[in-house]
Amino acid sequence: MATVTNGRLLFNEVPEGYPVPGKTTVYDESSKIDLENVALHGGFLVKVLVLSIDPYLRGRMRHAEISTYIAPFTVGEPLANFGVGVVIRSESPAVKSGDHLYGIYPFVQYTVQNNAQAFRVIDNKLNLPLSAYIGVCGMPGETAYYAWKEYASPNDIADRLSTQGDVVFVSTAAGPVGATVVQLAKADGLKVIASAGSDDKVAFATSIGADVAFNYKTVSTRKILEKEGPSTCTYWDNVGGETLEAAIEYAGKGARFIECGMISAYNTKTPYGVANLINIIAQEIHIYGSVVSSLRNKYVEEFYSQFVPRVASGDIKYKEHLVRGLENAGEAILDVQSGKNFGKCVVVVAEE
Amino acid sequence: MATVTNGRLLFNEVPEGYPVPGKTTVYDESSKIDLENVALHGGFLVKVLVLSIDPYLRGRMRHAEISTYIAPFTVGEPLANFGVGVVIRSESPAVKSGDHLYGIYPFVQYTVQNNAQAFRVIDNKLNLPLSAYIGVCGMPGETAYYAWKEYASPNDIADRLSTQGDVVFVSTAAGPVGATVVQLAKADGLKVIASAGSDDKVAFATSIGADVAFNYKTVSTRKILEKEGPSTCTYWDNVGGETLEAAIEYAGKGARFIECGMISAYNTKTPYGVANLINIIAQEIHIYGSVVSSLRNKYVEEFYSQFVPRVASGDIKYKEHLVRGLENAGEAILDVQSGKNFGKCVVVVAEE
Repeated sequence: MATVTNGRLLFNEVPEGYPVPGKTTVYDESSKIDLENVALHGGFLVKVLVLSIDPYLRGRMRHAEISTYIAPFTVGEPLANFGVGVVIRSESPAVKSGDHLYGIYPFVQYTVQNNAQAFRVIDNKLNLPLSAYIGVCGMPGETAYYAWKEYASPNDIADRLSTQGDVVFVSTAAGPVGATVVQLAKADGLKVIASAGSDDKVAFATSIGADVAFNYKTVSTRKILEKEGPSTCTYWDNVGGETLEAAIEYAGKGARFIECGMISAYNTKTPYGVANLINIIAQEIHIYGSVVSSLRNKYVEEFYSQFVPRVASGDIKYKEHLVRGLENAGEAILDVQSGKNFGKCVVVVAEE
Repeated sequence: MATVTNGRLLFNEVPEGYPVPGKTTVYDESSKIDLENVALHGGFLVKVLVLSIDPYLRGRMRHAEISTYIAPFTVGEPLANFGVGVVIRSESPAVKSGDHLYGIYPFVQYTVQNNAQAFRVIDNKLNLPLSAYIGVCGMPGETAYYAWKEYASPNDIADRLSTQGDVVFVSTAAGPVGATVVQLAKADGLKVIASAGSDDKVAFATSIGADVAFNYKTVSTRKILEKEGPSTCTYWDNVGGETLEAAIEYAGKGARFIECGMISAYNTKTPYGVANLINIIAQEIHIYGSVVSSLRNKYVEEFYSQFVPRVASGDIKYKEHLVRGLENAGEAILDVQSGKNFGKCVVVVAEE
């Protein structure tokens, strides 16, 4: 194979609103790589197989002077996110040729990496598709599992202030985080109200156990909550804005809100102002902003030893949206921001 | 004394915005009471001495069909709130003539009560003015003490996610809740930024230990926070709205917000919409809606045995705004809503 083109998806320009494929990101084929001879300097050469497209990536497509919990992408450089690749050559004692590594990769076809500790070897005795390891068995699944364990465990709920209901409201219930939360909540014996953005997604939410699922684009969230969960004990927020406001309106006494994402605010300079926050006091709501990386140390081994086998056994279900070719990753990013994808969005960069 | 006028402050009409003395409340002298012969039916006759005027009362001045954590006042009936009275006659074995009782009273000069358990006998061996027992040693002090203990204890802060700062931001820092929080935070070794609504109040906040105190009406809250507390670890919210938005903007990683009041939203039908809630996630903020009554059982004995003596010794300072005469309570209610009072507002209904 010798020298080949090393396709890359470059961050080209900070989007004003939604990212624009070909403008805010560009696919570039100007880089070449000699797979047999490229210097490894003690590291290892990886062929990238699958890359994850997640809502949070929009937050990294920003101007460098704005600081937040995660670094911005650098204009002119490849984007980066969780993926799985296979090692082609290695000079590292920790990694061998043929290993499948889960970790954060640049959006390229081939990459030389040198920090083996930043990757997790996927032995895959459970025989899951590699794509699962960047979805329900990767960061999105971890996001759901860790925060659910930390902030919404039923024991905790029983300790809460008063006559708690048993109703959980989950937004973006067909996405990889929301769908996992729906199933964790059902496994804990709770009634689940699920919102999603299309009738197909609603049907999927129902199929994985949601008691009440609705299309928030065609049905009033407030009306659903008023009828089905006027005293919600837990709200899992992936969207923010008006949905959050509705959830606050119908929160029960001592409700807990897990703030995981606010996609309604990612692509606008004028996010919706939530005006009923006084209900946080009236209902003694506790709101937990959560970032997966902060809980990883506490739960990661439990996640792989206890949760991932439930996925392999079919106990936990998931849905994927596969996009083939790194050249289509820019469009996939836009689709995830606009909700056009259905299921966990995975870019298949290469077959093995 | 026999039969005397029993003055009452009646709830007359639900306010549209701010309460209007003489319209939303009226002082009424049509009721008489025979102090020597009024039937007690096993209860006790109390002469009301002091009544507390608190911001939360506005929330009870609402239409009965709106339900929230506390019952609305009934139109045509007296308002009610915490107060201290002296027992004139008693048929109850739990209460004797001359006892001073802390509890919730109707806004009247004399009242027959029958549930001794709803009141606390103030033995006052510490020789505090009775007014203190409805302020720093009453519900407002309890509000500050309980929630500070529950949600902001320094041990907890040390457990938090990352490199916490040690900066606490307290709004309405000259009020009875805020001023107590300022002093609890200082006693815990934290740097305190305090906001208040007049230069006098700012001077008081400084006098009780605030490291940085400012008049939010003349100085930008955001500029102060940017300079003095760009990574605030704790925000004590009594106001909501734009101040809350500013606190969210400058919250440090893992900050905790204690939501105690939102006076900016009490007297308007269009509360300010907070648009930067996404920072709850980015900074992993934890927000605790808190109502004093839910924490009372856990902390009340500690409060009276440990905190009240600190008030009596002068260790904890407080400021009172005394209004003489129940006929002036309507104006006092408005003053507390508009911030015109300076210090804990107490209506002195009668001298003993």
